[in-house]
Amino acid sequence: MNEPPPLDLNADLGEGFGVWRLTDDEALLGLVTSANVACGFHAGDPATMRRVCERAVAAGVRIGAQVSYRDLAGFGRRRIDMEHDDLRDDVLYQIGALAAFAKAAGGRVGYVKPHGALYNTAATDERQAAAVVDAVRRHDPALPVLGLAGSVLLRRAEEAGLTAIAEAFADRAYTPAGTLVSRREPGAVLHDPQEVIRRTVRLATEGTVLSSTGVPVRVRARSLCVHGDTPGAVDLLQRLRQALRDAGIPLSPFC
Amino acid sequence: MNEPPPLDLNADLGEGFGVWRLTDDEALLGLVTSANVACGFHAGDPATMRRVCERAVAAGVRIGAQVSYRDLAGFGRRRIDMEHDDLRDDVLYQIGALAAFAKAAGGRVGYVKPHGALYNTAATDERQAAAVVDAVRRHDPALPVLGLAGSVLLRRAEEAGLTAIAEAFADRAYTPAGTLVSRREPGAVLHDPQEVIRRTVRLATEGTVLSSTGVPVRVRARSLCVHGDTPGAVDLLQRLRQALRDAGIPLSPFC
Amino acid sequence: MNEPPPLDLNADLGEGFGVWRLTDDEALLGLVTSANVACGFHAGDPATMRRVCERAVAAGVRIGAQVSYRDLAGFGRRRIDMEHDDLRDDVLYQIGALAAFAKAAGGRVGYVKPHGALYNTAATDERQAAAVVDAVRRHDPALPVLGLAGSVLLRRAEEAGLTAIAEAFADRAYTPAGTLVSRREPGAVLHDPQEVIRRTVRLATEGTVLSSTGVPVRVRARSLCVHGDTPGAVDLLQRLRQALRDAGIPLSPFC
Amino acid sequence: MNEPPPLDLNADLGEGFGVWRLTDDEALLGLVTSANVACGFHAGDPATMRRVCERAVAAGVRIGAQVSYRDLAGFGRRRIDMEHDDLRDDVLYQIGALAAFAKAAGGRVGYVKPHGALYNTAATDERQAAAVVDAVRRHDPALPVLGLAGSVLLRRAEEAGLTAIAEAFADRAYTPAGTLVSRREPGAVLHDPQEVIRRTVRLATEGTVLSSTGVPVRVRARSLCVHGDTPGAVDLLQRLRQALRDAGIPLSPFC
Repeated sequence: MNEPPPLDLNADLGEGFGVWRLTDDEALLGLVTSANVACGFHAGDPATMRRVCERAVAAGVRIGAQVSYRDLAGFGRRRIDMEHDDLRDDVLYQIGALAAFAKAAGGRVGYVKPHGALYNTAATDERQAAAVVDAVRRHDPALPVLGLAGSVLLRRAEEAGLTAIAEAFADRAYTPAGTLVSRREPGAVLHDPQEVIRRTVRLATEGTVLSSTGVPVRVRARSLCVHGDTPGAVDLLQRLRQALRDAGIPLSPFC
Repeated sequence: MNEPPPLDLNADLGEGFGVWRLTDDEALLGLVTSANVACGFHAGDPATMRRVCERAVAAGVRIGAQVSYRDLAGFGRRRIDMEHDDLRDDVLYQIGALAAFAKAAGGRVGYVKPHGALYNTAATDERQAAAVVDAVRRHDPALPVLGLAGSVLLRRAEEAGLTAIAEAFADRAYTPAGTLVSRREPGAVLHDPQEVIRRTVRLATEGTVLSSTGVPVRVRARSLCVHGDTPGAVDLLQRLRQALRDAGIPLSPFC
Repeated sequence: MNEPPPLDLNADLGEGFGVWRLTDDEALLGLVTSANVACGFHAGDPATMRRVCERAVAAGVRIGAQVSYRDLAGFGRRRIDMEHDDLRDDVLYQIGALAAFAKAAGGRVGYVKPHGALYNTAATDERQAAAVVDAVRRHDPALPVLGLAGSVLLRRAEEAGLTAIAEAFADRAYTPAGTLVSRREPGAVLHDPQEVIRRTVRLATEGTVLSSTGVPVRVRARSLCVHGDTPGAVDLLQRLRQALRDAGIPLSPFC
Repeated sequence: MNEPPPLDLNADLGEGFGVWRLTDDEALLGLVTSANVACGFHAGDPATMRRVCERAVAAGVRIGAQVSYRDLAGFGRRRIDMEHDDLRDDVLYQIGALAAFAKAAGGRVGYVKPHGALYNTAATDERQAAAVVDAVRRHDPALPVLGLAGSVLLRRAEEAGLTAIAEAFADRAYTPAGTLVSRREPGAVLHDPQEVIRRTVRLATEGTVLSSTGVPVRVRARSLCVHGDTPGAVDLLQRLRQALRDAGIPLSPFC
């Protein structure tokens, strides 16, 4: 019988700024295998970046650069029309800044994942996807890109010779075509913990999700994105890990 | 007869932001041996940082991280009372960001020099000097610190095992004790190009400057800071280089 | 028998930024009589400013401009050495921005109170106090300044013909001279709710606080500053209002 | 014979930030009748806003709020997808801030004109145009909106009961339909001073421009936008004023 492949759990961390906090970084670092660390453009002041890197290294959690548009006021959730070079340079700046903290903590940046509106835009927009890929390639061609399964970003990353890692969402509805149901539609986000856990185990063991029409659809994803900024996030994550353990799914950072 | 030791010429570069420009980076990169590149906190957007790094590598100019307080509106010229950890992390963030552009351009960050009010504060304030040194040490203990001859910053750098490089100013008046005359006093800044050139040659050949009382005073400096943001800066620099050449002073980046 | 004079309760509100929240603005607006609204420089995005103004007007709470250094990353808690004109213009900018939201909500800015490090600096520094006063005077000479009893700021405000309103703190220890015990010293901040309430009632009825040596000291204050960003703040404030009611102290905005 | 109606000349001013300058504000204030003053979001630090307001009042130049997306790094030239409320509140914040400086200088904000990408977006996008109009209406329903002739913004302004002022460009090519030729097409911007002056006079006297096909097209515009940030801008503007004087066109702020 086949062993199920290991699963990576990634979450956004360090998304405070100055006095403000958003996520329980301490608790989350004990539960995920990869940390998408905010790099200062949508969140993430330098002191927070340092602390998260130090704790991630101590916990054996992989550090990822969660790069964003320069938009503290909008938390990076608003699409900005940027030229290729400007966006690439903004992304490279953020990777470099995080790399300093990762290195000082005894670790390194292990992947790059766009945040918010940049994540969504780079999933469909050739120019912005190319800019993100260009930044990663210039920093280190061995650095993987983490993004939406089936996205333009991941295709572009592969075409540029980078390692593309696909992620899935256990709390999002999928269309029969295997794409995410838009957040603007009802039922796009699943709130029932039991259902989220069921979908996670199914995804990890069978590589499928039940689509919005009830038909199972194949979603190839090496990593699962979990949300740390919702009430009950830590509790859900603990139960989810237990369910995966019970199903015999090993957890480990990708690569 | 003794050969005069080589001299380094450093200047602030890349001090624009977005559409705004301050210095003629292109021309200056043909004239200096070390470029203090603004890292985004007082000036220096990512695209400018990239361009300056690419041209500095092409021109064989050493790249330095010109780190600052986070103060775009004040151009980093206003002292900010910061805690050790916060200042250290802000400095480390900036070094890391610049390192990404230096590396992508085929070079590397060769030294760190504080800018503006941080330069002045770290010259006399133990806490802030220690924070800058701590950031450099965490990034790379082999990275030199460039600062004012006789400053607390350089003493702290040496105590921490870092390489401390002293710089002098040919267009600033010195006290008989070898410290700079405060900018608030008349005659603190010299504007006559001939005099600036004469002082530069004297400094490079004899290691002394004429102090404000007319007495020569010894100033040990491996690097000379020249200003690129004044009218006629490029012209003065060309004449200054010629005068040094005539005096047989070799120019080269320190180390 | 003398009626006790009415007391004003002021608290910092709207101190979030973008997605981040700090205070329970909704609950606090039902409990205070004056709201120090953050104006965007240390906290307070435009949407938050609008919401707080709309609710303050609806609740009959006086709107104050809580002006700060430009320092989102440090929450305005770090002293910045600023020239008179620059600081004055920064303060005027913030007052104007808030005035637009107050007016659009059917109210107006009723006073100005500096925040954080600017509050502390303007309490002792002649230059910065003068700059704040200059900004208020230019905006509207009828606009009161709220600050620390006995501070340079209030003296300067009076000298400039402005209305100076003194405030006291029920959760801070006072010296026998009637000044605040520095936060760096043990016991500077009182955490026992019962004691805070006792001190508030004493202040409101007798105009005195027990100083750190146990001797009562006179503190003339028309307003009491309460803190909304600590756990239990809303609960404490409810009990404090009840205690004032029981003691027959009317609550109302100053003026 | 009919008198030609008076013409307004408007230009962007105060578009520096901190140490950086872009336009020769001093010279331009002697040549235009309306000043679009940057309000801090794409340019325009508080000290610059104050200076420009003081000089505009002294020169009898009308002060306009040049409102923008929050984007110092991109100079407001990048479209940002914003929700109605957030954009409205950002615009209201900027109007309020400028109003404080205008009032302190003895003047007032006389109109609102969006800058850069917001100008272009509000010319065609119903949602963003509505948000700008909403902000102006909330601040003062008597405040005119200055924008592109035929734009969604001006239509929305009129529908909301605001005064809509149309502007034209003497240095931009027009289509036979009376819209601007996109900057991406060759010949979109005219650089020959003689031609710009000829077109200005024609526009002022006949109300037409020669379109890109050579056919005259009617452009109803009460104001002409001139550019102050190009080399030779001040000289061109002086010659343009002389040509208008020779043609008997009076210059005055609109309204």
